[in-house]
Amino acid sequence: MEDWNSFLLPYEQAVDELKVKFRGLRPQFAIDNDQTPIEFVTGRVKPVESIQEKLVRRHIAEDRIEQDLQDIAGVRIMTQFVDDIYQVVDILRKRTDMTILEERDYVTNAKPSGYRSYHIVIEYPVQMVTGEKKILAEIQVRTMAMNFWATIEHSLNYKYDGVFTPELSERLERAADAAFKLDQEMSEIRAEIHDAAAQRDKEA
Amino acid sequence: MEDWNSFLLPYEQAVDELKVKFRGLRPQFAIDNDQTPIEFVTGRVKPVESIQEKLVRRHIAEDRIEQDLQDIAGVRIMTQFVDDIYQVVDILRKRTDMTILEERDYVTNAKPSGYRSYHIVIEYPVQMVTGEKKILAEIQVRTMAMNFWATIEHSLNYKYDGVFTPELSERLERAADAAFKLDQEMSEIRAEIHDAAAQRDKEA
Amino acid sequence: MEDWNSFLLPYEQAVDELKVKFRGLRPQFAIDNDQTPIEFVTGRVKPVESIQEKLVRRHIAEDRIEQDLQDIAGVRIMTQFVDDIYQVVDILRKRTDMTILEERDYVTNAKPSGYRSYHIVIEYPVQMVTGEKKILAEIQVRTMAMNFWATIEHSLNYKYDGVFTPELSERLERAADAAFKLDQEMSEIRAEIHDAAAQRDKEA
Amino acid sequence: MEDWNSFLLPYEQAVDELKVKFRGLRPQFAIDNDQTPIEFVTGRVKPVESIQEKLVRRHIAEDRIEQDLQDIAGVRIMTQFVDDIYQVVDILRKRTDMTILEERDYVTNAKPSGYRSYHIVIEYPVQMVTGEKKILAEIQVRTMAMNFWATIEHSLNYKYDGVFTPELSERLERAADAAFKLDQEMSEIRAEIHDAAAQRDKEA
Repeated sequence: MEDWNSFLLPYEQAVDELKVKFRGLRPQFAIDNDQTPIEFVTGRVKPVESIQEKLVRRHIAEDRIEQDLQDIAGVRIMTQFVDDIYQVVDILRKRTDMTILEERDYVTNAKPSGYRSYHIVIEYPVQMVTGEKKILAEIQVRTMAMNFWATIEHSLNYKYDGVFTPELSERLERAADAAFKLDQEMSEIRAEIHDAAAQRDKEA
Repeated sequence: MEDWNSFLLPYEQAVDELKVKFRGLRPQFAIDNDQTPIEFVTGRVKPVESIQEKLVRRHIAEDRIEQDLQDIAGVRIMTQFVDDIYQVVDILRKRTDMTILEERDYVTNAKPSGYRSYHIVIEYPVQMVTGEKKILAEIQVRTMAMNFWATIEHSLNYKYDGVFTPELSERLERAADAAFKLDQEMSEIRAEIHDAAAQRDKEA
Repeated sequence: MEDWNSFLLPYEQAVDELKVKFRGLRPQFAIDNDQTPIEFVTGRVKPVESIQEKLVRRHIAEDRIEQDLQDIAGVRIMTQFVDDIYQVVDILRKRTDMTILEERDYVTNAKPSGYRSYHIVIEYPVQMVTGEKKILAEIQVRTMAMNFWATIEHSLNYKYDGVFTPELSERLERAADAAFKLDQEMSEIRAEIHDAAAQRDKEA
Repeated sequence: MEDWNSFLLPYEQAVDELKVKFRGLRPQFAIDNDQTPIEFVTGRVKPVESIQEKLVRRHIAEDRIEQDLQDIAGVRIMTQFVDDIYQVVDILRKRTDMTILEERDYVTNAKPSGYRSYHIVIEYPVQMVTGEKKILAEIQVRTMAMNFWATIEHSLNYKYDGVFTPELSERLERAADAAFKLDQEMSEIRAEIHDAAAQRDKEA
């Protein structure tokens, strides 16, 4: 790649736009006094070294980057509850400013590592000075508990690359299960409170 | 209007998105070492009191706001040189994420007050939780000198509403002319320097 | 209170400044290739209705607000690990741009509800047009897991005020314990990986 | 310099903090319905190449950078009127979060090039992870008209380095004078309107 700065510009633009777009959904729920399913939104462009490392690891030729690397532009939406993830996904499916190419539900079907998130690959048109350019971007939707686990797992992997014994990997996987059980417990508590409130309102 | 907060949400969203989109054009010029025609970008949603005042002044019924008020969402693009204005307009015309409904060239044909700017009214689709909503927005493109004059004229008008004697209005108009002459002088200086540089490069 | 907007201005300013200051610590760790103890930072000014409700609930006179309400300006720092909380607190203690008035360690000693966080009350000088004004602000330092629980607990409390049966409160408290156990498990996993890496480096 | 990223961190932090601090002054004027003297605020850290070029040009040793380069961190405050510049300077003098080391009034005494601005060199304490670090920063206060001229002059100088004939420099200087006359004309118009409004209020 001759000029990474130039290559990454439309991806940076896409991340900036998508962050503003998804954050802008929050106040729309507040208006109707509804609980927003979106707790917070983050985004990043994959660092050049990580792109290069992935090209090598996956045997991807440089002229195939745009089609084969789907997560150069990445945006993450965090929710409070597991159900909120699917509500967010439904909202994303209705949008006309992007095209969904692929959905992978690692919430219901966790990865072997224990990782959970809902992944959506989109095609997103960025308006450049020279005209429209369509790029791929990955949207990850996850609960705060899934994000807690994934953040720590990623930073351990990054810092201690290569010293994960099978036993440690297993412990991390069990921690992911515990985080998910916590998610389910919080959902149940919400459901019970919701029912109690409905009961109270009926009796009033 | 029952609920202004709710009514203004898509306009606020549009302003946030358009600011990110137009600011994102700047680094694209820097990449090619070109002078960027965009110096800075600002945006605002018209305050409720100003909307109400305009409805009364223009005899617009409340159910006609969306169609008849074109500047509830407003974005301003400032350039260094007069020519840059038209370059920006050309770039805007190529975009596929908005539809231009109307263009008014107050740069070549100043308003009687002396005001100069290039106005573009667009239809812009905002993705709401409930689906796409098309709103109108106004984009003003002007040089920094035009912006200097317009900012001061607006703040004097706002603070000293109704005490503009014809003589004062005339002085302000002459100041606008002087600002425009300054714009033209700067353009000429740039042209001369450009020619001198070209001449030097040819001789080298 | 005659004018809440005016009263809240220095608090808004303090929150804006503290967010920029604490976020600015992150890249300093990255430079030395150290794990940053600060995962993300949020901030808010307490809404007027919440202030008024708290004044009534705690029998605080309006002329005592500035001294008696310590959390009108609130900033939250989220960490990956429990130990990071204490590292952040140490860094805050060294700062010369604020004075720590009080520390409350709800990490080691959870509240009866199950809530965990480290609270620091500071006096922070804001430079107003009219001169320096010292205000109180509350900084909460917590892990992402503590934040996960506290965010959900707060939003359930807010939406379903008054329908918490003792049994539901107990379930929430047990969930807080589970979140804390998860925090401890993650810390242990990190410690083991750290030791394994040290061992490997020694053998190399 | 071994590590520019690390060296520039406190300067970047200072610029971020000063922008938030100066922008935060604007709403304080709005509260009292006063005209704000601050129209907008920008900031930047000097690019590494510009620092290196300046070191060579001014024969500054690398170990003298911190003391001898006063504009590595730069913040610019734009006003509507010339008088506003001095009001802003007065407000800055009262601040206790920075120490003014030097003031240079290029507003009254323009540089030979025609450049006008009020320059203030401050010592500003940044709180690093390792403790407080005092750095130098330069604040430039200027009207929008001065900024218009300076922006264009700088970009022409940058793009056409070395082809300024004496005649072109003279033309640029005359343009700076014209911009300043425009500033004075706007001030006079404001004064007259102010008097007319006062007269009207007296008669009412």
